Amino acid sequence: MTAPWITYRPELKVLDCTIRDGGLVNDHKFEDGFIRAVYDASVAAGIDYLEIGYKNDRKVTAQGQFGVWKFCDEDDVRRVVGDNPTALKLAAMIDAGKCDWRNDVLPKERSVFDMMRVAFYANQVSEAVDMIADAKDKGYEVSANLMAVTTVKEQEIDQVLEVLVATPADAIVVVDSYGSMYAEQVELLVKKYLDYGRASGKQVGIHAHNNQQLAFANTIEAIIHGANRVDASLMGLGRGAGNCPMELLIGFLRNPKFKIRPIWEVLQSQLLPLSRQVEWGPFPQYNVTGQLNEHPRSAIAARSGDKKDNYVEFFDRLTSDV
Amino acid sequence: MTAPWITYRPELKVLDCTIRDGGLVNDHKFEDGFIRAVYDASVAAGIDYLEIGYKNDRKVTAQGQFGVWKFCDEDDVRRVVGDNPTALKLAAMIDAGKCDWRNDVLPKERSVFDMMRVAFYANQVSEAVDMIADAKDKGYEVSANLMAVTTVKEQEIDQVLEVLVATPADAIVVVDSYGSMYAEQVELLVKKYLDYGRASGKQVGIHAHNNQQLAFANTIEAIIHGANRVDASLMGLGRGAGNCPMELLIGFLRNPKFKIRPIWEVLQSQLLPLSRQVEWGPFPQYNVTGQLNEHPRSAIAARSGDKKDNYVEFFDRLTSDV
Repeated sequence: MTAPWITYRPELKVLDCTIRDGGLVNDHKFEDGFIRAVYDASVAAGIDYLEIGYKNDRKVTAQGQFGVWKFCDEDDVRRVVGDNPTALKLAAMIDAGKCDWRNDVLPKERSVFDMMRVAFYANQVSEAVDMIADAKDKGYEVSANLMAVTTVKEQEIDQVLEVLVATPADAIVVVDSYGSMYAEQVELLVKKYLDYGRASGKQVGIHAHNNQQLAFANTIEAIIHGANRVDASLMGLGRGAGNCPMELLIGFLRNPKFKIRPIWEVLQSQLLPLSRQVEWGPFPQYNVTGQLNEHPRSAIAARSGDKKDNYVEFFDRLTSDV
Repeated sequence: MTAPWITYRPELKVLDCTIRDGGLVNDHKFEDGFIRAVYDASVAAGIDYLEIGYKNDRKVTAQGQFGVWKFCDEDDVRRVVGDNPTALKLAAMIDAGKCDWRNDVLPKERSVFDMMRVAFYANQVSEAVDMIADAKDKGYEVSANLMAVTTVKEQEIDQVLEVLVATPADAIVVVDSYGSMYAEQVELLVKKYLDYGRASGKQVGIHAHNNQQLAFANTIEAIIHGANRVDASLMGLGRGAGNCPMELLIGFLRNPKFKIRPIWEVLQSQLLPLSRQVEWGPFPQYNVTGQLNEHPRSAIAARSGDKKDNYVEFFDRLTSDV
């Protein structure tokens, strides 16, 4: 057999979702200096894409509650990264049902963004199709991110994929929103997405959550089976249990264009201080929701309350029959 | 294909190494109450084996420095668990070069222990063979744990395995001492150990470390490929980055004899308080030694010094050319 951990696939691209998924931890209230440091580290480390936040509709999202990275106006992004004169591509996430994409996604020639990532639940696939077509028409790379796929029946996944492969999306992403997948499930889904996407040349991605300390392992598993678009975040920053840690992923990848020292630098200068202000990681409550294949909102609430150390009460509540 | 995460293999046995490997974090200075709580939780959770500590030679190990679980005298064990009138089997680790096994391993009929785990480096295999034969003669179950296998050349691994399969050991364990293995390497080694052990009916085990947050994933990987002896510890307690977390393993296993609620209870009552006194887990320095396939002693030293937050200095030091 070949030794895949010795060689590399040049077509494998890494997306840093530190700021976007991490924004779900601190309501997107990052200082410009933090954004700039993550941007600089991504450039220096050879990361391919940096996802900065959401482009939520200001009419439907309470503005006072969130920092500017919930909306990602061009002016805010350019204030920090200028016109982005680097090889690093910038991405924003646009959420079905929460984004005025017809108006707020500008034509690419007027935008500093390179990619739009369309996030949607299975029941929102029709809007997602329109969003994908719109973003592609406007000149962006587009990825289609079907969220919470572990709660979708096999037949419906097939139906969603049939619809997606007819869109101009460049990539379709296996999204383990609840951090509940084991390696076998990652393998099955990556192979399924690849099978559907092959005819239209779509790449397959993986976005893992760390509820069961499997985000990095599942990302490797997806890579082994052919995923070429992989998400990770610095120190695993992300909602709840967080994501695949970039420092582990870059340590694993063997493409010499990736450099790990800038990652350790930004972990030390930015993420470590942040970790003293906000909490993320695979704490017991997130283990439980991952094991139960549930949205982590109950765990997030438990971790922020005065019963955060009562694992048993939480487990009993989530497994109660009444 | 079958769905292995739905069914289970009754022959798969779980060993809790919380106290033994965790003793490397606190010099084995556990209160009796902690030991009893881990014991009670293991019984209630349906764990198969509980490894309590080492049987080190008092003549070669500085006694004042360590708690009693570095030596595991019968009197100490019986003070806490009596004659162990349960289905839980008790194990001790005996280290080649550090154990006066001829004298300190009692005949089974005079001991509360059920199993001896013989730990050794490749160059100590000759003493290990004698230790295995001695422990088996005295009436114990015996496992052979070749440590730091990721630093041993393929040819030497083969030679060690050829020798081990001729011993009366019941199990041979794939030991990822440095937490440096990825899934492919786990697969290769488990299959190799299984191939060697098949003719003499030996079981294969896995002992993973969590330097790269892969201990749980690698344990699953080993199980998928046929390992039936798996080690885990409560909250992952263990030297450096720690081990495979028991709460994740039990959440994964589908044998109804395993119960997870007692695990959450003991995590809450014992491990959480301990985590405020001593440190373990996959911190950046452990990521680095795992990525470099090195013993974690440099990382342990860094985490206990005043430069514990200087990830870059540590990385530079370990990757310096001079």
